[in-house]
Amino acid sequence: MAKVVTFGDIMLRLSPPGNQRIVQSRSFDALYGGGEANVAYSLSQFNIPVKFVTKLPKNMIGQAAMNSLAAFGVDISDIILGGERCGIYFYEKGAAVRASKVIYDRKNTAISKVKAAEFDWDKIFTGAEWFHFTGITPALGDNVAQVCMEACQCAKKLNMTVSCDLNFRKNLWTSQKANQVMTTLMPYVDIAIGNEEDAEKVFGIKASSTDITKGMLNTDGYKDVAKELVKRFGFNKVAITLRESLSASENGWSGMLYDGKDFFNARRYQIQIVDRVGSGDSFSAGLIYSLLNGYDGQTAIEFAVAASALKHTIEGDYNIISEEEVMSVADGDVSGRVQR
Amino acid sequence: MAKVVTFGDIMLRLSPPGNQRIVQSRSFDALYGGGEANVAYSLSQFNIPVKFVTKLPKNMIGQAAMNSLAAFGVDISDIILGGERCGIYFYEKGAAVRASKVIYDRKNTAISKVKAAEFDWDKIFTGAEWFHFTGITPALGDNVAQVCMEACQCAKKLNMTVSCDLNFRKNLWTSQKANQVMTTLMPYVDIAIGNEEDAEKVFGIKASSTDITKGMLNTDGYKDVAKELVKRFGFNKVAITLRESLSASENGWSGMLYDGKDFFNARRYQIQIVDRVGSGDSFSAGLIYSLLNGYDGQTAIEFAVAASALKHTIEGDYNIISEEEVMSVADGDVSGRVQR
Amino acid sequence: MAKVVTFGDIMLRLSPPGNQRIVQSRSFDALYGGGEANVAYSLSQFNIPVKFVTKLPKNMIGQAAMNSLAAFGVDISDIILGGERCGIYFYEKGAAVRASKVIYDRKNTAISKVKAAEFDWDKIFTGAEWFHFTGITPALGDNVAQVCMEACQCAKKLNMTVSCDLNFRKNLWTSQKANQVMTTLMPYVDIAIGNEEDAEKVFGIKASSTDITKGMLNTDGYKDVAKELVKRFGFNKVAITLRESLSASENGWSGMLYDGKDFFNARRYQIQIVDRVGSGDSFSAGLIYSLLNGYDGQTAIEFAVAASALKHTIEGDYNIISEEEVMSVADGDVSGRVQR
Amino acid sequence: MAKVVTFGDIMLRLSPPGNQRIVQSRSFDALYGGGEANVAYSLSQFNIPVKFVTKLPKNMIGQAAMNSLAAFGVDISDIILGGERCGIYFYEKGAAVRASKVIYDRKNTAISKVKAAEFDWDKIFTGAEWFHFTGITPALGDNVAQVCMEACQCAKKLNMTVSCDLNFRKNLWTSQKANQVMTTLMPYVDIAIGNEEDAEKVFGIKASSTDITKGMLNTDGYKDVAKELVKRFGFNKVAITLRESLSASENGWSGMLYDGKDFFNARRYQIQIVDRVGSGDSFSAGLIYSLLNGYDGQTAIEFAVAASALKHTIEGDYNIISEEEVMSVADGDVSGRVQR
Amino acid sequence: MAKVVTFGDIMLRLSPPGNQRIVQSRSFDALYGGGEANVAYSLSQFNIPVKFVTKLPKNMIGQAAMNSLAAFGVDISDIILGGERCGIYFYEKGAAVRASKVIYDRKNTAISKVKAAEFDWDKIFTGAEWFHFTGITPALGDNVAQVCMEACQCAKKLNMTVSCDLNFRKNLWTSQKANQVMTTLMPYVDIAIGNEEDAEKVFGIKASSTDITKGMLNTDGYKDVAKELVKRFGFNKVAITLRESLSASENGWSGMLYDGKDFFNARRYQIQIVDRVGSGDSFSAGLIYSLLNGYDGQTAIEFAVAASALKHTIEGDYNIISEEEVMSVADGDVSGRVQR
Amino acid sequence: MAKVVTFGDIMLRLSPPGNQRIVQSRSFDALYGGGEANVAYSLSQFNIPVKFVTKLPKNMIGQAAMNSLAAFGVDISDIILGGERCGIYFYEKGAAVRASKVIYDRKNTAISKVKAAEFDWDKIFTGAEWFHFTGITPALGDNVAQVCMEACQCAKKLNMTVSCDLNFRKNLWTSQKANQVMTTLMPYVDIAIGNEEDAEKVFGIKASSTDITKGMLNTDGYKDVAKELVKRFGFNKVAITLRESLSASENGWSGMLYDGKDFFNARRYQIQIVDRVGSGDSFSAGLIYSLLNGYDGQTAIEFAVAASALKHTIEGDYNIISEEEVMSVADGDVSGRVQR
Repeated sequence: MAKVVTFGDIMLRLSPPGNQRIVQSRSFDALYGGGEANVAYSLSQFNIPVKFVTKLPKNMIGQAAMNSLAAFGVDISDIILGGERCGIYFYEKGAAVRASKVIYDRKNTAISKVKAAEFDWDKIFTGAEWFHFTGITPALGDNVAQVCMEACQCAKKLNMTVSCDLNFRKNLWTSQKANQVMTTLMPYVDIAIGNEEDAEKVFGIKASSTDITKGMLNTDGYKDVAKELVKRFGFNKVAITLRESLSASENGWSGMLYDGKDFFNARRYQIQIVDRVGSGDSFSAGLIYSLLNGYDGQTAIEFAVAASALKHTIEGDYNIISEEEVMSVADGDVSGRVQR
Repeated sequence: MAKVVTFGDIMLRLSPPGNQRIVQSRSFDALYGGGEANVAYSLSQFNIPVKFVTKLPKNMIGQAAMNSLAAFGVDISDIILGGERCGIYFYEKGAAVRASKVIYDRKNTAISKVKAAEFDWDKIFTGAEWFHFTGITPALGDNVAQVCMEACQCAKKLNMTVSCDLNFRKNLWTSQKANQVMTTLMPYVDIAIGNEEDAEKVFGIKASSTDITKGMLNTDGYKDVAKELVKRFGFNKVAITLRESLSASENGWSGMLYDGKDFFNARRYQIQIVDRVGSGDSFSAGLIYSLLNGYDGQTAIEFAVAASALKHTIEGDYNIISEEEVMSVADGDVSGRVQR
Repeated sequence: MAKVVTFGDIMLRLSPPGNQRIVQSRSFDALYGGGEANVAYSLSQFNIPVKFVTKLPKNMIGQAAMNSLAAFGVDISDIILGGERCGIYFYEKGAAVRASKVIYDRKNTAISKVKAAEFDWDKIFTGAEWFHFTGITPALGDNVAQVCMEACQCAKKLNMTVSCDLNFRKNLWTSQKANQVMTTLMPYVDIAIGNEEDAEKVFGIKASSTDITKGMLNTDGYKDVAKELVKRFGFNKVAITLRESLSASENGWSGMLYDGKDFFNARRYQIQIVDRVGSGDSFSAGLIYSLLNGYDGQTAIEFAVAASALKHTIEGDYNIISEEEVMSVADGDVSGRVQR
Repeated sequence: MAKVVTFGDIMLRLSPPGNQRIVQSRSFDALYGGGEANVAYSLSQFNIPVKFVTKLPKNMIGQAAMNSLAAFGVDISDIILGGERCGIYFYEKGAAVRASKVIYDRKNTAISKVKAAEFDWDKIFTGAEWFHFTGITPALGDNVAQVCMEACQCAKKLNMTVSCDLNFRKNLWTSQKANQVMTTLMPYVDIAIGNEEDAEKVFGIKASSTDITKGMLNTDGYKDVAKELVKRFGFNKVAITLRESLSASENGWSGMLYDGKDFFNARRYQIQIVDRVGSGDSFSAGLIYSLLNGYDGQTAIEFAVAASALKHTIEGDYNIISEEEVMSVADGDVSGRVQR
Repeated sequence: MAKVVTFGDIMLRLSPPGNQRIVQSRSFDALYGGGEANVAYSLSQFNIPVKFVTKLPKNMIGQAAMNSLAAFGVDISDIILGGERCGIYFYEKGAAVRASKVIYDRKNTAISKVKAAEFDWDKIFTGAEWFHFTGITPALGDNVAQVCMEACQCAKKLNMTVSCDLNFRKNLWTSQKANQVMTTLMPYVDIAIGNEEDAEKVFGIKASSTDITKGMLNTDGYKDVAKELVKRFGFNKVAITLRESLSASENGWSGMLYDGKDFFNARRYQIQIVDRVGSGDSFSAGLIYSLLNGYDGQTAIEFAVAASALKHTIEGDYNIISEEEVMSVADGDVSGRVQR
Repeated sequence: MAKVVTFGDIMLRLSPPGNQRIVQSRSFDALYGGGEANVAYSLSQFNIPVKFVTKLPKNMIGQAAMNSLAAFGVDISDIILGGERCGIYFYEKGAAVRASKVIYDRKNTAISKVKAAEFDWDKIFTGAEWFHFTGITPALGDNVAQVCMEACQCAKKLNMTVSCDLNFRKNLWTSQKANQVMTTLMPYVDIAIGNEEDAEKVFGIKASSTDITKGMLNTDGYKDVAKELVKRFGFNKVAITLRESLSASENGWSGMLYDGKDFFNARRYQIQIVDRVGSGDSFSAGLIYSLLNGYDGQTAIEFAVAASALKHTIEGDYNIISEEEVMSVADGDVSGRVQR
């Protein structure tokens, strides 16, 4: 039985090989991913029983999306089959001064048309302790936000922990709409997770003295963001990923955790990027894993940041990395020496 | 200035490499194609000035679709940019007893949302002699059918020849709806083109004694189909492709032309298939080329069938083949000997 | 809970791309497969709950082997982790007069070192109705044969049906040894399955008037083989696949079923081969599926032969094909027409 | 009608995938490029109507070279077909301390055999405002230098602006020969462009205190070079690219513009290199675009340097990048953050 | 010490992957081959010590060409390094009615510029028994024909056997020129080898009643060709390959041997073609191997035809096949059954 | 005749393309390599006649391993054919904080089962001056250590120089066993080579103040290691590679040579890593080459370090690099500028 349940979208991801641009490419690498699916995959790799819930069309693309999760043990038994299409996104990997680009083609998908009646959350949550979703899911439509709300309510009823990665997507909704919808969901959330811009874009809570397009972060500024989030919504914990965008090829990466009392800052990694998509999700998974295991604040944030630092080196949305590998990095072995 | 104008959809075509199934593939070959785009490409290869008209989103996918046509000289200057997405289709190549499969994801595309006011056909048709469309285009929606109608009316006003490949697509509309819409368009059409089942599916005109799933065709039965089409709609000419589906790997291929008086039957080819998508379009292009060049009936149908026989050996929707190559086959050299 | 349990080896399969020879190749396509694993995969595709049991090393190769099965729903929860290596086989695809070649590197694998005490068959078989193994498994070593024996005994104790694909492998044992070991296992077997040479190689029961290297089969000769098998071991049913090896590129394919009273002969397919590895396993899966569904003899053999005919068109050991697809072919649609 | 015309060579470029060496590679990525072709491609991407003039053999390689330009809108209508072969160059990408290597196989090509009579420059230049060539073209042979001369003379007669990238190639001619030929062409040139060594190799004008093999540049030294060039040839403007060769994997990149009065220095970029071939050409295109748009000196050099900094991240000779993308970088966003 | 010496050209062979056309391909598979190099490679595979003599440029392409032969044991120690370029040929694989195409780019190569003084044949031939060349070599230029002549004269002086594959190439010379040059070389030749059209194209000796573009051969007609060749030039033996060009995908293949007295006809193979380039060379190698081994006429021609039948199934010019594999086919096993 | 002889293992190396993990890969790049084979390959590239001795199975994998060496001139004439399998290792390339991983599957290989009687070292060493082996070879088993011992004894008898790369492999033996076996072999060794941890792992000689997992090295500490090695075993020279493991993507690289009197320290390179496998072997080859050429200590260590710095940029185990290329880097050109 799944300990963690995540709910959201999963898309076909199409990316040109290597450093090619979409417009010049004659083939696309085909993988699958999406915020909550990525979290589920990562947790399953960490040996946490986890279930991913979504709706997918009954065709080979939907089947392949499910297989990609089942391959590593994610419970897909509550995925609903139906609807017309699976979302697609095109991902072009940047380099140096050329930014990575994403083209979304995710409208009118099966998941975007779901109705609340399709999901029996009491049954889905049987035996589960944790429910996770991201800000992407309610952004798919009012109907999906409604399903999210029911899932949250059911989870709270069952005394489950609820975590939410704010994950603002400007293509899906405006800040105003996001604020309105997310504000109704936050009362059910225990653990809020965000990156360096989510709190501002969703709730208008801005870190002071930071310009994210300039690469450098003012870490202290984010302490105020965390405090304000706790103050406004009463979260049990707030975790923030801290990215320094040095270039499309190299990033600084860290994170902090605030438990309403203390701040825990993780080690900072400087990373040559293979694929940074899904790094936020891998952070969420690392955090959920840590908290389920009862890790203290410092250990938890170190594990979550190490897990997501490793994600930057893995092709695809999924963080194909084991507990042992994360722990080795979290414990300080970043030499990259060949392991024979 | 373009001599021929074609109007319709163009999609991103995604196909697993080699003989892989969609569900097992980790990459898709990415090409572009669509009925009328394929005809335009082929005519351009035959050195006929040709323009393709459609609407595409202003992103890298739309750009790549346009580039694929411009690369070989198709005039794309009247393509409208806008809308949300480019259609996609997944194509899985079959083999032996396993049929090839197509999954369409072509709803809500830029072309499917066009309005008549967006197209100035008088300007588009400047200097043109021929307008070609297929049954796929009006099937995209009543709005697109309306644009088609206006294009046809303008073409007739300008004394252009109008050809239509009936091309029934059961995913886009029912036979009943097709019959209704196509019947209103046929009065403007001079040359009707169809395959072994289009006339039946669109107009209920069935060839006698033929079961297309059994591989073997009763060629004579199609003479009655052609006669009935001419009788009902007053076409100047009717051309029918004749496919014998021996297996997914090997087909018989031929065609006939009826000019209202005489029947012209082309040589039959037995073909080991590389890629049969777009073979009907390559036939249309071969026929248009032949008629523009004033070829007699027998020469015209031989050229059109040879062109489309060759298409079966070319990867992708486009028939990348020159006039000389078609003529060599039409003249009887099918030995496949190495040309040094 | 799994309805069917299969037990045996699964190997990493390395094959040069396309038609390359092993000696000239700079890369190998990497897939996983093995007799009983292939049967499990296929049954899972047919929506039969199925469990595959083996032992695999605790490394990324073992993990990938498990993932390949879990991806499509095979229950891998009773796979034992341990041992030193996963078996490997190199597969070079032949063409025309050049035979396909297999190089096995499967000694000293985890599965070849198992001990009976490692498997709790009562627990493994909980809720199961059917146990399937092939002649490859006992050929891996006397210890593995012993595990097989215990599995058979437990299965019979639980009133499960036991099927065995004789599957003689001359690299693993001699005919003499095979005869000796297999003879001790046959009393537990209800359904025996073999190809055109297994009965001869394992039990010395030869079809009359047939030379398998000449391509042509004397189907009648195999009736005697089936009768003799039933007579000697009291099988409930015997099924035989019938291959005509016309060349490495094209085969005739059929099969027969004998229920101790009547013979049922399936339609014969002529197939352009994509990948024939695992065709016997796909036949076994088709037969098990049919018998679990209570199909009559003719329907059962037609389904099994259609399923395995389709396998010849799929890359890899696994028969990635659905019930619907098999039924369509079994019902006679072998035209290979594009399915849109 | 083309606003800019460029004239020169275009070659088939063959490069091993990834970081492979030519001697170990079993396949070559096949693209097309050449100095003036690259400039034309880039200008077309910037929406400047542009025509590329050359001579290519009438075979599939010549056709593919043309298609590569037509795909993105370059006018190829004045390319002459004939001659025996298309030039080829092999490009091996270096890494770290291993330098990239180029093997040219460009003798006896169609373009190298052209005669002046083949080109009607008055007709070719109809409606054009700008003519661009590089030092490579006259280096192909005295006959080609003569065609260049006639093009320059015609361009000046028509009051067109003429730009020349000095682009010294030691495989094609000696410094002495280059000096002699280029000196006769410079009187027709308005805008001279060079890299950190061209002025020295072609005209013996050396920057003081700089050793280009040591990575570090003395930027001031190049001011004297620019001044001397203006003094000697009366150029309207001189632009110089400034490369710091830190390693084959990472370069510093900048540039300066001198208008005979003021010096404009662009921002310096530190770039992880994907493919640096054609970076000088992308600089020329950026400069021509800027000057055609009437940008001031600082804006012009920033655009040109940003465009060519981006080129280092694009596979192939062509700078597949839009005006908007260049402007975003020129405006200072070099964070490489994912653009969704 | 080499028993056999071959002398001629070796080229870089560039071919689009799979069934792509050259004009649409973005990569080329890169292999090496040439008439006499192919014969040397094949003999080395058959464990005959063999040396290949040519001239290659001192760059990575030349090096790769040499490595391709050395890898399987061909003695390359007498290859001369120098000259400017290695010949290149583009090979596009046909299918069904679309013929395979070759574009040669082999002028001005190192081998085409050799002078007689560069080769010390007495030293090269030390210990050798057999010298082989093809009609391609003297066709490279009068200078190369002169080198060939000296090699032949030296070989005869040393009592070596000389074999020549007539191999007419219309791109290299006219029939008239070929006749003139080859006539001077034939007196030194013991074994003449040709395909179905060489004798006609080089010496005007035509098989009666045969049209090679129609697929079907009149085998008897070639007996007269063989007789006439023996009569005219006094050959010890004449061998002729017999190809029936059914399509680009499927050929009939056989051969005959005439020893001046008796005719030996080999079995006919019907072959699904993977790559037919070099099939003539593999036939020559099979014949040389057989005659060196003292096989009788029937055994010799069966081995040569089986070897070359197998070549049609191997990618590249080289016949990567062992003695044992050829013998198995020559002995009649053409079932293509998997060899485990 | 070979000047240098090396003896040891060669394995099939399977690595996922690009940055993929083994568990997610669907294909493996297939190359061959092993300590002493790599040294032989590199020496052959430096034009030193060299022979590699091993035992390989008589199948296509063994053949491909041999071909990989013969391709670039390594003498393989004393490789023994026989045994059951060729060793395999899986290599997964790391990035940034993710370490590269190697999975060995090298037990029960042909080389691991050799017996002393199989090797006639007097004959093998005919004409040779130098014998090289690594600590991997005796680690394969006591029988192999015995063969090593006999080779060493024979080499000393013939007054050859013997070099040994200590190369500790913890998967093959313990430090205790290594110490015991290697101690018996060291008396025959003239030149000892090691990396930053070998001396400690094999002989317990630890560099002071260095933590190799932290990236930074205390170079001085290694002087004591070298001194102690000379003191303990009487080596003529000791060479040590010095790696700073900054991350899996970037390393510092240098080396030192101690001739019993003086220390020679090479330049330090900072390297973006393409493939670091075999870098120690390329260092050994560079050192052997230098000493055979009589280079002085400083020149020798600079050449060896430059050669192995370059190895980090080459895909595969083999250092595909020429003398000239090494010398250019050793002489200080590390700008990576394109060489045209």
